[in-house]
Amino acid sequence: MSVLTFLKPRGSSSVARERLQLILAHERAERSETGRPDLIITLREEILNVIAKHVTVERDKVQIKLERGEGVSTLGVDIEFPVDAISKAKPKAKRAIA
Amino acid sequence: MSVLTFLKPRGSSSVARERLQLILAHERAERSETGRPDLIITLREEILNVIAKHVTVERDKVQIKLERGEGVSTLGVDIEFPVDAISKAKPKAKRAIA
Repeated sequence: MSVLTFLKPRGSSSVARERLQLILAHERAERSETGRPDLIITLREEILNVIAKHVTVERDKVQIKLERGEGVSTLGVDIEFPVDAISKAKPKAKRAIA
Repeated sequence: MSVLTFLKPRGSSSVARERLQLILAHERAERSETGRPDLIITLREEILNVIAKHVTVERDKVQIKLERGEGVSTLGVDIEFPVDAISKAKPKAKRAIA
């Protein structure tokens, strides 16, 4: 998945729509155990759940690409949504990584 | 933040270390309300919390870049970690976006 094709700017037609794009790349070590669950797949659901808490997402406006290469797994998510789809509430999140 | 410089491949020196890189770009609509909290900042903490649930992260191995441009806000996260830092448990996550 070429990063650039994924993050290509949108046409200016949809003025009242916004776009969220996410790329998650996991570069694995040579001797990482093959049996271990793929980190990207583990993270994908929970990250999508975080996004869905803050943005009302229409299923057909979500593109998800997952690629597992030689030493790298890559997840690409592209979500388009109307301006008012973002929830106003400012949630308080405990910080795990400072 | 140029996507390419962020996702540049690591040197092959650290064979037993892995790397997780995330880029989150939010393309805002021209008339989105200025008073609204920045979506990227809202999502940043919760996504980092999701990652920290599955990877034991050393604080000094986490790089976070946040850029707010004309119509786009971009978050870049780069985490390096040892092979055994990934938790083995395979959590069951409810799916919000299919």
